[in-house]
Amino acid sequence: METMLAFNRNIALILAFDGSEYHGWQFQPNSVTVQGELEKAVRQVFPESDELIGVSRTDAGVSAFNYVCNFGANSDIPVGRIPKALNTYLPNNIVVKEAIDAREDFNSRFSTVSKTYRYSVLNMPNNSAFFYNNLWHVWPKLDLEKMREQSKHLIGELDFTSFTSSSEQRENKVRNIFNVEILNDGMISFIITGDGFLYNMVRIIVGTLVDIGLGKDYNIKEILKSKDRTKAGQTAPPNGLFLANIDYGNAL
Amino acid sequence: METMLAFNRNIALILAFDGSEYHGWQFQPNSVTVQGELEKAVRQVFPESDELIGVSRTDAGVSAFNYVCNFGANSDIPVGRIPKALNTYLPNNIVVKEAIDAREDFNSRFSTVSKTYRYSVLNMPNNSAFFYNNLWHVWPKLDLEKMREQSKHLIGELDFTSFTSSSEQRENKVRNIFNVEILNDGMISFIITGDGFLYNMVRIIVGTLVDIGLGKDYNIKEILKSKDRTKAGQTAPPNGLFLANIDYGNAL
Repeated sequence: METMLAFNRNIALILAFDGSEYHGWQFQPNSVTVQGELEKAVRQVFPESDELIGVSRTDAGVSAFNYVCNFGANSDIPVGRIPKALNTYLPNNIVVKEAIDAREDFNSRFSTVSKTYRYSVLNMPNNSAFFYNNLWHVWPKLDLEKMREQSKHLIGELDFTSFTSSSEQRENKVRNIFNVEILNDGMISFIITGDGFLYNMVRIIVGTLVDIGLGKDYNIKEILKSKDRTKAGQTAPPNGLFLANIDYGNAL
Repeated sequence: METMLAFNRNIALILAFDGSEYHGWQFQPNSVTVQGELEKAVRQVFPESDELIGVSRTDAGVSAFNYVCNFGANSDIPVGRIPKALNTYLPNNIVVKEAIDAREDFNSRFSTVSKTYRYSVLNMPNNSAFFYNNLWHVWPKLDLEKMREQSKHLIGELDFTSFTSSSEQRENKVRNIFNVEILNDGMISFIITGDGFLYNMVRIIVGTLVDIGLGKDYNIKEILKSKDRTKAGQTAPPNGLFLANIDYGNAL
């Protein structure tokens, strides 16, 4: 029988985490996950609190600059003191950057307006001695022009069946991609914003664009039309992927 | 008895390494050092080769963007293939970026014209989830104006007795500092160029400037005049320090 608990606060947290040593966000009984570590810290600071709701599952190895989660709690700790209080109990590679007293109906998973992912590719002959856990090292030189040209066809409300894993369970494969940018600022950064993403979608988009940059003759329009995963390119490794930003409109 | 070996090449290497897991550059029989790891790789690729000469010892935890070392070798491997050949045998956190066939008389330690160090301070309420091994996390907010004002007095040919460890053995404590810049580009970066540096000199300079930024009433001119280490501020931790660049003029 479930007991209904009423909590006096709905606390949202904005986190950065280096996912390279975690089995993703989602709690798993026998693996080290970000949610698992964060739940332990939350129990210390908020003995009366509900389970964490996270904006999305993330694959093992994926990191975040601004991950958002929320939880109900009974507590009168000032909101400005929450980050430091939680960080005391967290490992170095998970940092609470900000805590916000959210409206009662705010849900970090369901209140999203858009999400932005960033994918980092190091396109140099040799890998970095510092960031090798958080990027994809690709050589030879990528043709950015061709990649940018083809990336335009990903923008819009489209059926992304070709750009998701066959293990994606959701029926509706239509997502609205608002923007794809490919920056060259030391790294090659793919910045992709959309209303939602299917399983492995960003990694297959980046993998296919990198294949194009390496000279493969892919046509994004035709790949989309085919609704066939085998027509798209490789799945980029998880370690270059960062959940960069979540837009909640007026909900947060 | 020493055997004189004549080598047909003097090979210079430019390295990046993340020093946070090493006991410095210099070989030590019972510790993991950068030189120790690199010597093992060099023996694989250059069975006939001399000991490595490095531009300087570095403290445990100190990193480098462009460390330079050189060694004599008998080999006909094309110079462009050397980085990849060595990187195959190196751990991820040591990367050979470039190899150069140097003149016979080039010595990475003694041919220097100037060295540039970069020191990274993260001046935010919370630490980074990604770079915590390669920076110094300082809070509250630093007064950059005051730090920049005082840092000007470090420039010139000066006696840096107050800014070195008492364990520094060299008699001559005069060094010529050409430039000190304090940038604010997300991190606070101290970029210091000089003809040479005493033991712990950059770390004591940065520690003293940070003390000034936090409100301590230090006067760099007076500290220099005193020739007394106890008059300067704290020694900044090694992990924020990077050997950034070595200028060899026409020697390399």
